[in-house]
Amino acid sequence: MEGFNLELSDQPESLEQILVDCRDTLKYGVRTGHPRFFNQLSSGLDIIGLAGEWLTSTANTNMFTYEIAPVFVLMEQLTLKKMREMIGWPDGEGDGLFSPGGAISNMYSVMIARYKYFPEVKTKGMSAAPRLVLFTSEHSHYSIKKAGAALGFGSENNAMDLYDKLLHIFVFADLEAKILDAKQKGYVPLFVNATAGSTVYGAFDPINEIADICEKYNLWLHVDGAWGGGLLMSRKHRHKLSGVERADSVTWNPHKMMGVPLQCSAILVREKGILAGCNSMCAGYLFQPDKQYDVTYDTGDKAIQCGRHVDIFKFWLMWKAKGTIGFEQHIDKCLDLSQYLYNKIKNREGYEMVFDGVPQHTNVCFWYIPPSLRGMPDGPERQEKLHRVAPKIKAMMMESGTTMVGYQPQGNKVNFFRMVVSNPAATQSDIDFLIEEMERLGQDL
Amino acid sequence: MEGFNLELSDQPESLEQILVDCRDTLKYGVRTGHPRFFNQLSSGLDIIGLAGEWLTSTANTNMFTYEIAPVFVLMEQLTLKKMREMIGWPDGEGDGLFSPGGAISNMYSVMIARYKYFPEVKTKGMSAAPRLVLFTSEHSHYSIKKAGAALGFGSENNAMDLYDKLLHIFVFADLEAKILDAKQKGYVPLFVNATAGSTVYGAFDPINEIADICEKYNLWLHVDGAWGGGLLMSRKHRHKLSGVERADSVTWNPHKMMGVPLQCSAILVREKGILAGCNSMCAGYLFQPDKQYDVTYDTGDKAIQCGRHVDIFKFWLMWKAKGTIGFEQHIDKCLDLSQYLYNKIKNREGYEMVFDGVPQHTNVCFWYIPPSLRGMPDGPERQEKLHRVAPKIKAMMMESGTTMVGYQPQGNKVNFFRMVVSNPAATQSDIDFLIEEMERLGQDL
Repeated sequence: MEGFNLELSDQPESLEQILVDCRDTLKYGVRTGHPRFFNQLSSGLDIIGLAGEWLTSTANTNMFTYEIAPVFVLMEQLTLKKMREMIGWPDGEGDGLFSPGGAISNMYSVMIARYKYFPEVKTKGMSAAPRLVLFTSEHSHYSIKKAGAALGFGSENNAMDLYDKLLHIFVFADLEAKILDAKQKGYVPLFVNATAGSTVYGAFDPINEIADICEKYNLWLHVDGAWGGGLLMSRKHRHKLSGVERADSVTWNPHKMMGVPLQCSAILVREKGILAGCNSMCAGYLFQPDKQYDVTYDTGDKAIQCGRHVDIFKFWLMWKAKGTIGFEQHIDKCLDLSQYLYNKIKNREGYEMVFDGVPQHTNVCFWYIPPSLRGMPDGPERQEKLHRVAPKIKAMMMESGTTMVGYQPQGNKVNFFRMVVSNPAATQSDIDFLIEEMERLGQDL
Repeated sequence: MEGFNLELSDQPESLEQILVDCRDTLKYGVRTGHPRFFNQLSSGLDIIGLAGEWLTSTANTNMFTYEIAPVFVLMEQLTLKKMREMIGWPDGEGDGLFSPGGAISNMYSVMIARYKYFPEVKTKGMSAAPRLVLFTSEHSHYSIKKAGAALGFGSENNAMDLYDKLLHIFVFADLEAKILDAKQKGYVPLFVNATAGSTVYGAFDPINEIADICEKYNLWLHVDGAWGGGLLMSRKHRHKLSGVERADSVTWNPHKMMGVPLQCSAILVREKGILAGCNSMCAGYLFQPDKQYDVTYDTGDKAIQCGRHVDIFKFWLMWKAKGTIGFEQHIDKCLDLSQYLYNKIKNREGYEMVFDGVPQHTNVCFWYIPPSLRGMPDGPERQEKLHRVAPKIKAMMMESGTTMVGYQPQGNKVNFFRMVVSNPAATQSDIDFLIEEMERLGQDL
């Protein structure tokens, strides 16, 4: 705040000052495109994608009607179809939208599931339905819980308590028991979320096993592939999403694993027409039925938004420029880099892995153990000290401005680092640097 | 679709082809920045705003945490405070967020109102609350109804039927009667939306009168100023929002009347902390409490989104470059242009105004009556013919590529044109052109 006057005033600033402000904004910002920025699932800066975003801003239009975004609407339609083909739905049939991020895409999935089984909730409210339950694993993204709270299911009690401890690895055995338990308590199971690439561990739920249960009990199956969906582009890794073609809906964020600039998230639905059924309000001033073109091209009434930002063009342009094989190469390379990191640290002195086995996605979760803690027997004291290591190292990383990696606790596990790689600019030397930097900053803690 | 290969394939395209694709995208697009594009509430292309959006794409970051968007988070905080000062809340205190459009901002207002009066719905679902009712006028934006459907209130029956015919001009007398009626039927009134600048007519609900009723019955007052909020910047026109300082929440879209590139919409709330209370889920992997900075700067847990696009910078930069007086001049000029159009056509042969009196916003609603209908007595036949005039003229406008204006029916009124002016590039000669063009295209209908 010092040395950068952010205050807004009545009088205009000079153009020179505006340029200074632009420079300062970049100067004090964080370089998310830097190959040593590992802090988020989204990183990197694809130049074609950036050009696409610049063109999008210049066109400055809105996705709600074909009449003011004809090219973008067609691109969206075609790209969503292509994504549905990759999911494996017959002929790529179905529906979809680009939405403002994975949390909203996941919220759509819950809304659509509710509309499918209890369409009268749209007009009559939740009191028209029995007490519905959503199932998701403890490791799933918090947006499922958030959707439950927002849409009137409640984030606890009638939903969450029942599945709060559902770990992805036990999902088959546990899920059916939990469904039966919910039914027995008078709840109506509605929806199961299978995570394809969990946020912290990068774990993939066993979709086929979950799909079997969903079929048996007639439940909506959503696959949250916000982070892992990109792996569908890779012949080597797409098996991790086996069964995704059995899902009723899928979230897939090209702005994460595929390096598309923020924001670019798709909600894909197998049943055609259900998005519009769920959300349409037929506003006369936007969606006139007597337009001179086929108004089924107007997408606005499918959305919970009215105006909708053009998120498709940068993605479409990157796909054109790279081809599917370009995305595949990028994904394979990122997973190789993670494997490289995993191999380097799994037996290295001063590192402990958070979970056993090879990471399924690019997530490598580990504790760095400073020399002072290495001889200490495990117990509350060591855990307490270890809990403070990652925040301290991260603070030093940020102060030196050399790299950035995320950390968090999880369940009864104290703060650990989560490394993720999605930046096309990252190389093995950046991974090497990270390890050196971790040790440089952490050695005296 | 002819002559523009939109298909995506496995192999990459050449850079030359990518440039051709970019040119074609702009060529077949719609010039929303053209001074004769009057089709939407958002139009124009502010060059500083565009530069801001380009810088934003280059920074490619995310609003959820201070650590990766420190400058943007501070700018957002400061700009929201400035907006709250203009609303008139003491010291600009309160809360807020930029959200992906006015529909989502309005959805926030309903969620927050519910959380204020029935916080247990967040965890226990709608079954923990009585049957709640939302009140809004027939002329309000459909997003209130959409929010009702999504959040589990229902769009009809327990909400909408009760206020479906509430016209803004009768709101004082009617609203209280409808509240009492709802209570008598066993519903619990929760929320009243007052529209500041309705989508079609540009009408302003009498906020003070509505606020009196809300106070009397202890209801949440939301002001949807998506379209009209900008008038707060004008000393001449801000009286149209008198009483807005009594609102509990306000939607205000700088991407509409203030010419900020899409998207830029704010939800502003008078009570501090309630946004986080309503939406937080405290995801450990993003919002660690032991970061090395004051984590109240992290905005992510206030939102229903997880990732959130940076919508603030272009707006902040425009405000710096124009000053408040620059926005004021823009708004005053647009309203003058509308007045100019209104004066030109109100008594002109071949035009009928849809509502009496001077427009309150830039919306001028009218029928163009082709010569063939001018002598015809009013009745179903004339109405039916008149209903087809606007779509035909609009189709011809789009085919000749000269101008674009929206039309719609409303209630028992057949299709009429809605002219709106928000483009800083529009001048009187563009208004003159519109009239000539209307008559050129419509004379033989």
